[in-house]
Amino acid sequence: MERTIGIGLLGAGTVGGALVRRLIGESGAIAAKTGLVFDVRRIGVKTLGRVRDFEVTDGLLTDDLFSVVNDPTVDIVVEVMGGLEPAGDLILAALEAGKPVISANKELISARGPELIAAAERSGVPFLFEAAVGGGIPIIRPLSETLAGETVTRVLGIVNGTTNFILTKMANEGTAYEDALAQAQALGYAEPDPTADVSGADSAAKAAILASLAFGTWVGFDDVYYEGIQSISVEDMVFAEDFGYIIKLVAVCDRTGSGVTARVHPVMVPVEHPLASIRGATNAVFIEGPSIDSLLFAGPGAGGEPTATAVLGDVIDAARETLAGAQVAPRIRFSPGEIVPFEDVETEWYMRLMVDDKPGVLAKIASRFGESNVSIRSVWQEGVDTKASLIVVTHRAVESSQRAALESLKLIPEVLEVAAVIRVLGVER
Amino acid sequence: MERTIGIGLLGAGTVGGALVRRLIGESGAIAAKTGLVFDVRRIGVKTLGRVRDFEVTDGLLTDDLFSVVNDPTVDIVVEVMGGLEPAGDLILAALEAGKPVISANKELISARGPELIAAAERSGVPFLFEAAVGGGIPIIRPLSETLAGETVTRVLGIVNGTTNFILTKMANEGTAYEDALAQAQALGYAEPDPTADVSGADSAAKAAILASLAFGTWVGFDDVYYEGIQSISVEDMVFAEDFGYIIKLVAVCDRTGSGVTARVHPVMVPVEHPLASIRGATNAVFIEGPSIDSLLFAGPGAGGEPTATAVLGDVIDAARETLAGAQVAPRIRFSPGEIVPFEDVETEWYMRLMVDDKPGVLAKIASRFGESNVSIRSVWQEGVDTKASLIVVTHRAVESSQRAALESLKLIPEVLEVAAVIRVLGVER
Repeated sequence: MERTIGIGLLGAGTVGGALVRRLIGESGAIAAKTGLVFDVRRIGVKTLGRVRDFEVTDGLLTDDLFSVVNDPTVDIVVEVMGGLEPAGDLILAALEAGKPVISANKELISARGPELIAAAERSGVPFLFEAAVGGGIPIIRPLSETLAGETVTRVLGIVNGTTNFILTKMANEGTAYEDALAQAQALGYAEPDPTADVSGADSAAKAAILASLAFGTWVGFDDVYYEGIQSISVEDMVFAEDFGYIIKLVAVCDRTGSGVTARVHPVMVPVEHPLASIRGATNAVFIEGPSIDSLLFAGPGAGGEPTATAVLGDVIDAARETLAGAQVAPRIRFSPGEIVPFEDVETEWYMRLMVDDKPGVLAKIASRFGESNVSIRSVWQEGVDTKASLIVVTHRAVESSQRAALESLKLIPEVLEVAAVIRVLGVER
Repeated sequence: MERTIGIGLLGAGTVGGALVRRLIGESGAIAAKTGLVFDVRRIGVKTLGRVRDFEVTDGLLTDDLFSVVNDPTVDIVVEVMGGLEPAGDLILAALEAGKPVISANKELISARGPELIAAAERSGVPFLFEAAVGGGIPIIRPLSETLAGETVTRVLGIVNGTTNFILTKMANEGTAYEDALAQAQALGYAEPDPTADVSGADSAAKAAILASLAFGTWVGFDDVYYEGIQSISVEDMVFAEDFGYIIKLVAVCDRTGSGVTARVHPVMVPVEHPLASIRGATNAVFIEGPSIDSLLFAGPGAGGEPTATAVLGDVIDAARETLAGAQVAPRIRFSPGEIVPFEDVETEWYMRLMVDDKPGVLAKIASRFGESNVSIRSVWQEGVDTKASLIVVTHRAVESSQRAALESLKLIPEVLEVAAVIRVLGVER
């Protein structure tokens, strides 16, 4: 027994195009596997003239976005247009009208997640967003369903393919940051304006979603400290390798004794850690908990086809639940909880300084660390004429103390430059 | 608003014990995250005297297994006793009584899956078995839900921790098979009778389930060819390394032009393949498809705690769907399809022969391969006194041709021994 489900699509870009091709071209296979037949009833785009590379019956296209949501033949709304508005109001309207919504919009969900989830709960319909994090990697569903009974303690994610592609080029081939970025743009991995990727903002939105689902306390985009990869140098890549590390942009989500926290910044990852071997545009998420020990999920983190697969999985799931005809309970509930500000989180620092190569400089520097309650794990110094490169790796200390030590160091006249500050991934917690 | 759901447990071994401790000890955290309260109402065991290391109110325990299923206060039945019977009839009875069932029983599901799934569908209740494959790794749900819209072409799995532990010891430390097995037994990774693990039968049951969910055509245990690791030698580990491979016991599930197929045997895995780096008792599943490219899932494949986490995720999911009060549609439907027998599957072979080191022997051997339509990719020969070790790696050919070549080789008088036959993982399909 097959039932036809009307799909309304918001956005006709790479993901939307791939999804429509799948819904039409593979309808037979989908029906055989799921018993469901999907029919794309309306496709909303912001500007009609800008739809490209997208073969659909013209009659489906409209720039009246709310007409997609309000179309009575549309049973499920799929939002793949991105951005905060009008996506947010469109999704709210659909949920309030009792229509399941599938979204790939990490920016919106990390900003307005609780409001959207509450609207879905009020209407008893699914609001699913597997594609918002990790593209084609199933990660939202495992976190919120399979691991619903696990007290997840840590989630680490390489969740931005563009920056991982750039960092891999830099590490493996010694390519300078600017050149690696240009290559990423030429290959279509990076946008003409790469800011959202290289600044860490894209990863931060995903970190917020991962932390929220993992810990059951809502962590919003504004709760996530983030830093990008723009100042990472090949020189630090080489030093990292000497120390047994590789530099990655990592979303770090931790449950600590005092609350939960999420942050995104370049991290020195020990080469033996599973995340160290994630190369190129691949994404990976690493989950730790007392019962599961650790889980690794890896795969294509972006691209129209993988992302469309994740969206399609959600569409099938929503259709199945909706056809059951019942009010759907939310998959996860969020409880109030403490969000630890980044300044209070314990970090380990790698610092590269240029100093005057004079007697007593190291003692001065060491004492500044001590005054800030930061203890030094290792020091490495290399003379360059009358100057020296000094690398200091600290033990774990709260971020604010590390920063205080840094500010204090800068006041030492012999410290000519703080060339790099990169946090180290402590593997033991 | 919290609702209490009665749990009936069948089996009180490692997984059952871990599950009960979680349901009791973490009930607050589970309720906060899911809005659900679980109450263990009855625990059925085959023999009351043999329950060990398991603190529960004695009143819950019974050896009348059907009383667990029939208890009107039991809303969901969890089967973690294993084996074909009485587990199969208990599950059928529960499903027919309209109770959702969670099972970790790969042996039973790979033997009677369609029958059990059909019973669940008739009653409109969930029958979930995330824990049956990969222990704590979420793999069943991603395959059957997130990837429901993907035409999966291949699934590769290291799905037995015992054998991977043994093979890792052999490869890394040169430990002989028997000694590595003894260590696995001492550490509790291997049973006193390790047959199910080392023979490949355990992996074959999991391969059947993975193939069925990935391809949407039911592949039963009897459809899976399997071979164990008992004849793998450290010598072949060393040769494999020289050729750029590592030997793993892999469940290989393929969608080919003529149907689907699943098999389990030792495989030479290229060192650069993600499965090559899966060490010790860790499990991993690697999924390929045209849209997702490839996905890797890795984590603890066995053990009470990880497996209990997977069971608990299913329990929460089933409770959520059941409380919605609707008839639940199955997550996946199976269509009839061709199952390709192993003899017709294309494989690549590594063969190690002991031969008399005489002129013309290699020519004779090569001609036998040619007569069987198997072409040779590479040959390596090392003299040992008047004998030689000859290693032949073939190009892809159907398994029956490879076997015919082998039988034909054995008839050459100068071929003294066929010391090893191990299939090679062709990375390109």
